[in-house]
Formats: sequence, C-alpha cells, structure tokens
Amino acid sequence: MMYPDPSSVSRVCSIGAGPIGGGWTAHFLARGYDVTAYVHDMAEREALMAIVETAWVSLTALGLAKGASLDRLTVTDDLDEAVKGADFIQESAPERPEIKQALYERLGQIVPEHVVIASSTSGMTMTEIAARCPSPARCVIGHPFNPPYLLPLVEIIGGERTDPAAVDWAVAFYEQAGKAPLKMKKEVPGFVATRLQEALWREALHMVANGEATPEDIDIALKNGPAPRMVVQGQCMAFHVACGEGGMATNLDQFGPALKWPWTRLEAPELTQELRDRMVEGCNAMAGTRHFTEMAAERDAKIVAVLKAVRGDA
Amino acid sequence: MMYPDPSSVSRVCSIGAGPIGGGWTAHFLARGYDVTAYVHDMAEREALMAIVETAWVSLTALGLAKGASLDRLTVTDDLDEAVKGADFIQESAPERPEIKQALYERLGQIVPEHVVIASSTSGMTMTEIAARCPSPARCVIGHPFNPPYLLPLVEIIGGERTDPAAVDWAVAFYEQAGKAPLKMKKEVPGFVATRLQEALWREALHMVANGEATPEDIDIALKNGPAPRMVVQGQCMAFHVACGEGGMATNLDQFGPALKWPWTRLEAPELTQELRDRMVEGCNAMAGTRHFTEMAAERDAKIVAVLKAVRGDA
Repeated sequence: MMYPDPSSVSRVCSIGAGPIGGGWTAHFLARGYDVTAYVHDMAEREALMAIVETAWVSLTALGLAKGASLDRLTVTDDLDEAVKGADFIQESAPERPEIKQALYERLGQIVPEHVVIASSTSGMTMTEIAARCPSPARCVIGHPFNPPYLLPLVEIIGGERTDPAAVDWAVAFYEQAGKAPLKMKKEVPGFVATRLQEALWREALHMVANGEATPEDIDIALKNGPAPRMVVQGQCMAFHVACGEGGMATNLDQFGPALKWPWTRLEAPELTQELRDRMVEGCNAMAGTRHFTEMAAERDAKIVAVLKAVRGDA
Repeated sequence: MMYPDPSSVSRVCSIGAGPIGGGWTAHFLARGYDVTAYVHDMAEREALMAIVETAWVSLTALGLAKGASLDRLTVTDDLDEAVKGADFIQESAPERPEIKQALYERLGQIVPEHVVIASSTSGMTMTEIAARCPSPARCVIGHPFNPPYLLPLVEIIGGERTDPAAVDWAVAFYEQAGKAPLKMKKEVPGFVATRLQEALWREALHMVANGEATPEDIDIALKNGPAPRMVVQGQCMAFHVACGEGGMATNLDQFGPALKWPWTRLEAPELTQELRDRMVEGCNAMAGTRHFTEMAAERDAKIVAVLKAVRGDA
C-alpha cells in the first residue's frame, strides 16, 4: 500500500467526544487542519465543544498555525459522513473491546485503505482492536499523553497485522502535525511514559503508606527537585550531563552499586555490561559533538526559564 | 537553646569547594548574604570560583536580592576564620564518615551553640555525622537537589540528638533564603525526591535492558509527557485535577485495581483504606477551596509557559 505524503493531509477525522477525542480535535484544528469530529450522539456536541474551547485558550497561547480556526470544525453523528474526505483518522472511542472492534470492523469497510487510522487506546493492543477489521494493515496505536492538546508525546505502535509502513507514516504525520512521536520498540503495558510515571507513583504511594511523606511532601519534592530538570533534559541526559566529562559511563560505573541500595521498593535490574553500554552509547548519541559544559549551560538557561514560567513571570 | 530570628541571619559560612559547596555559596550570595567559603586548601579556590561564576549567570537571570554581590564573598582555608561571625553554616564536605565526624567534632567546639549547622549529605544520617560533636543539638541535615543554585528543594531532618527546634529553625531559614524546604517525617534512604526519581530511573533501566526503549526514547517520553505537568503540579495534584470533580478519590477508587497490573517492575503497595484516605485528604488540603476547573486552567496556563520556556521563546 502506498500512503500519501503526510504533508498532503488536509482533513482529519477525530472520533470521540470525551477529553481525549476533544483534545485531539482541538489540537488538529490548531495545527490548521479541517477537522470532522464524530460523536456517538449529537447530545454530546456541547460537551465536546466545551473541551475544544477550553483547549483553544492554551493552543492560542502556544501559537496557532496559519489559517487555523474553530470554524473549520464539523461535528456529526453520521460515521460515513465523518470519515468522508478524511486523510487521517484519530479514534478515541470508549475503552471497551466490543465497541472498538465493531468500530474498526465498520471503519475497515468505509475508509479507503491508504488512510491511516490511529487509536488513542491506553490499555488495548492493535491486534485486539483490529481483530474484526477487514483492512488492519493501516491501523496503528497513536497514544497521547493527557491532556492531548497540550502534551506533545504520542506513542506509536502497530498490531500483528499492521503494515510497518503505516507505523512509519504515522510517526511522520504526527511530527508534521506538531507532536513529539515516539515509535515503540515493543508492545509493553503502559507504553514508555506511563510506565515510568507509574514506577514513581507507586513509590509515592509506598511513602505515604509508610508515613514517610504526605501527598503535599511528594508534590513539593517533585516540583522543586527532579521535575524542573526532567522537563528540560529527560532523566538519561540529566545524569549524563551531571556527571561532567565522564557522563553516563561515570554515572553507571561509579554509582552502579547504588542500584542495590534499598532506595525505592522497585527491584533493580542487573547492571550487565550490555545494559551499561546501551545507556552510555545512547547518551553519547544524544550529546553528539556537544561538550558537557555546553549542555550544562543550556540546561541551566532552560531551567531558569522553566522556573520563571512556573512562578508566573515568564 | 534559643535560636535567633532566621531573618536576622546576615553571614553564612559554606564549607566545601565542590559543586554542592560552590552551588550553596553562589545561592547565598545571590540572596544577599555575606558568605565565607571554607576550602580545605587555597588551591581549591579557583575551582570554587568557577562554580560560583557559572551559577551566577543563572542566579542573575532569576533575579538577585537587593545588595547581592560576588564582592561579599570571602574564601579562606582557616576554619576558625571561616566560622567567625557566621549566623548559619552549610557543610558540604566530602561524603566520608571520618572526614565529616572530625569536622563536626571541631565545629562543635568553635561554633556558638545557637548557630545551626546543616549538612548537605545525601548518604549519611545526622546521628552518624554528629557522633563526636560536643554540641549536636543544633546539627541538622539540609540536603539540596543538584544543582543547588538552581533547584529550590532542601530536605531537612535531624539526628537522634538534634533539638527539634533546630530543625524548625532550619526550615524557616531556608524558606527565608529562597529555598523550598521539605521537613522530613522520618529518616529514609534517598530522602523523598531522590527515592521517587530512583524508582523512575530503575524502571527506565529495566526498559533499556529489555529492549523496550532506548535512552533517547526514555528522554523523549519524559520531556514531552509527564515532566511538563509534574513541574507544574507534582504527581498527586496532577492526578487529583485530572480526575475532575472526583479528584484523588476517583483516581484511587476507580483506577486502584490498576496498581496490580504489571506496569513497572515495582511492587505496588496495598491500597488500604488508610492509604486511600491519606491520599485523598492530602490532595483536598492542597486544593483548598479551589474548584478543579480553576486548578486545571491554572495548570494549562503554566504548562503553556513551561513548554514555551523549554522551546526557547519565553
């Protein structure tokens, strides 16, 4: 199957009137697309519009694409009408297998096969969702992070019957559409971002359960400690740059034994040579030719901007 | 012991020429204090000044206190000279028990007992550090988050022989000095912030070890997903507000079973009624009288500012 150039997409169909579907609708409108929003029942239109209008405030502040307008939104409860002329479909229907499977069976019949269909699902696999779809090759997961109109991440993966070219197309399209796409290496429950967040969250619950911290303590610690750096560098590059000349290699070779310390109730992985090398090589690749002092200065400047933004004088 | 009013502090002694000691020196100078920096050897002066000057760029961008100046720094390798006239001492000596214990033995002799001494230690307890100190009541841990000139968090706890009033004084002083103090409920390895970060870090290492993600994937996921929200709300309030009207109660009552899902390799705590209530009450207390829509709007506005800050147009 030949998929059209991602830059040629002009109309997007967004299925679903909840916070995820509404968030996607607002995002695509803000990026200058024509959007048809499918709602199960026209009674949901008002709720959808409330979400879109709330999101529009932030999207306007972030900067709208040329020609972007709420006037380019059409809302319908007719699925055939909704997908007509759409160059891409973002599906955010309820997270129930029977609903998704029936929907993809129908979409597979009425949507041309060169149109990629992406599901916002956070808990199902595309293999399961597209079980009854007659044209599963173009079906992928495009999982946003809430709220989807604000946070750029989209985690992308296909199912067993997905064409790898459809996955690559989705990555290219989301990039074009102003998102930060992450092509998943494997199906893994929770994807990447939610798994990482969940590890932190479980530790937070342990601390509250043990009387070591209150919820307020947890939030004070995160907002004033790791988070301002994490938003600027992620965690791998944060450690890489913090270790100076030696980078991630120093971090792992010197502090590796600390993985055995009972910090957190999470069992630590074995720090094999292979794991060490993957971490070191990954960080070196991200650093490229930049010296750590250059990266540290860039980090500092951005943390300053983030702190000013958070305290409200940006 | 009566400790002086934290607002009366005018001279701070910062012990240590490394990134932590140097970072503290820069921070206190930026907040308008006179600072005496103790270095073990005058040969370390140059390295210390390099750290202070690097930090000064960021501190200036964040806004200096009235009268703040690098000219108000004195560097000495004479400990008696260093502590003379100091109203507060921040100790960031090497993390070796014999060094810290000898230092606190001497400080306990030469520093008036109403002067609080805080250690930046990340791995020792104050009980251990002050083992040989003749006046341990005023000795506390004041553990910063790296880099200490930028990240506001300071985690505070005493040892077995610490006067609780000295802990409270340190909390009040750090607040006065522009930090975000967190008074620890219990001695816990890794304190609060580093434990939470470590849980996330271990999960990240597991994902890389299993070929589920590269270090770059980890960083893309964090920077574009959880981090922009975490810096604005922490994790407890992020979930509280995301669950709308129902808040944290909905989060735990509805998604509680998800704690048993194999998301992350971290064993989940038992979601007892007590834990549930602590989480819910903690979030309600933080929310105060604010409606969730108000908090969500504030979150969105700040995430917008953070995203603009990170991409460089703040």
